Amino acid sequence: MNDSTTTIETLKEKVKKFIEERDWQQFHNPKNLSMALVSEATEVLDLFLWCDNEESYKELEKRRQEVENEIADVATVLLAFCNHHNIDLSKAITAKQVEQAKKYPVEKCKGKWTKYTEL
Amino acid sequence: MNDSTTTIETLKEKVKKFIEERDWQQFHNPKNLSMALVSEATEVLDLFLWCDNEESYKELEKRRQEVENEIADVATVLLAFCNHHNIDLSKAITAKQVEQAKKYPVEKCKGKWTKYTEL
Amino acid sequence: MNDSTTTIETLKEKVKKFIEERDWQQFHNPKNLSMALVSEATEVLDLFLWCDNEESYKELEKRRQEVENEIADVATVLLAFCNHHNIDLSKAITAKQVEQAKKYPVEKCKGKWTKYTEL
Amino acid sequence: MNDSTTTIETLKEKVKKFIEERDWQQFHNPKNLSMALVSEATEVLDLFLWCDNEESYKELEKRRQEVENEIADVATVLLAFCNHHNIDLSKAITAKQVEQAKKYPVEKCKGKWTKYTEL
Repeated sequence: MNDSTTTIETLKEKVKKFIEERDWQQFHNPKNLSMALVSEATEVLDLFLWCDNEESYKELEKRRQEVENEIADVATVLLAFCNHHNIDLSKAITAKQVEQAKKYPVEKCKGKWTKYTEL
Repeated sequence: MNDSTTTIETLKEKVKKFIEERDWQQFHNPKNLSMALVSEATEVLDLFLWCDNEESYKELEKRRQEVENEIADVATVLLAFCNHHNIDLSKAITAKQVEQAKKYPVEKCKGKWTKYTEL
Repeated sequence: MNDSTTTIETLKEKVKKFIEERDWQQFHNPKNLSMALVSEATEVLDLFLWCDNEESYKELEKRRQEVENEIADVATVLLAFCNHHNIDLSKAITAKQVEQAKKYPVEKCKGKWTKYTEL
Repeated sequence: MNDSTTTIETLKEKVKKFIEERDWQQFHNPKNLSMALVSEATEVLDLFLWCDNEESYKELEKRRQEVENEIADVATVLLAFCNHHNIDLSKAITAKQVEQAKKYPVEKCKGKWTKYTEL
């Protein structure tokens, strides 16, 4: 299994199976899953808490296994959310990108991290 | 584009292109992206802040468009992280699931949300 | 020491002393402290992840010691932020409450959790 | 009102009054408040998202009013949590500091941000 050949659907199914085997769907209402998503994202953040931006590249390499594990956890909750609440992720990303492209036209935001409300 | 036919790689490329057009890679060190991941996950959480678990299903349907947009934002940052820091998400999820299966064997955790350290 | 007789300043001094003894001020730029604040707040959230609103009262009593510890951690980072970046918390809360009272006039929001933009 | 003369209890009462006038206590179970705490902490984090550690000092001064407002929001939720769930913050901080001092003895952690498990 790798990103070049695996479809989103296949990954979703993989996550679904793991959860259903454990009968965990009952806890996966939107509120709980939104909390789990924040919780897992914060595990990634915890790995880069006290270093500066430049040092964070080194931290990542030093702890690559941990980072990949935490990123996998975020992805798992995200896919569980999509599974359980019927979201097609590819469509959602495509739709959102159209919206973002209007807020952040290339010529206005190139090389800047300013929020669109302040561009 | 939909989840049945789209590979992870294709979605990653889509995100990459959007970011490179805007020359935003320079801000995408691990520390910043970990913060962006939490920030976007919290946008999902904000939609379910004051309701209870049962009501959160109704909230999701009432605001489905917003929810899908925020989920897309989380996915976008996640894929940017994988792109920029060379993580194969399918492999990472597979590896993590093997680990999780050991911590949470079906017979011990079925239908329970107890943490593995307390099982 | 208890909340009836302790001033904010006294608590701030207590936190300051602990940090200066360890020479940790050098890591306490606004960016890092904002991350630490989220990290500690998420430790509180983790204690109530899978239960529902009603059950969370029981969880709190069952794990009161842990909850109080995590709340103390959030407060410590908050006071460190105020110390290091020269914020008078009492004034900040007073000023913000005036603002909030305009957004949420009693007669419009009583008993509702609707956001002011949707009231 | 300022930090030198205001007790924690006085601030707690101020927050309590605001909430009771609006009849919002009903939403303040531990689960919801833990989410609100993360939500408000993330508002602080959002202000320092793309800058680096050094730049974050300048960002803070440029947006001091916003920062103080968001810090006030975190403090408000924190005090609401203490009010509603009967936590004496001064005692909790004192107790936690004793524990932290054992995990982080001055001679071992001075000038380092290493986690105690790795010291």
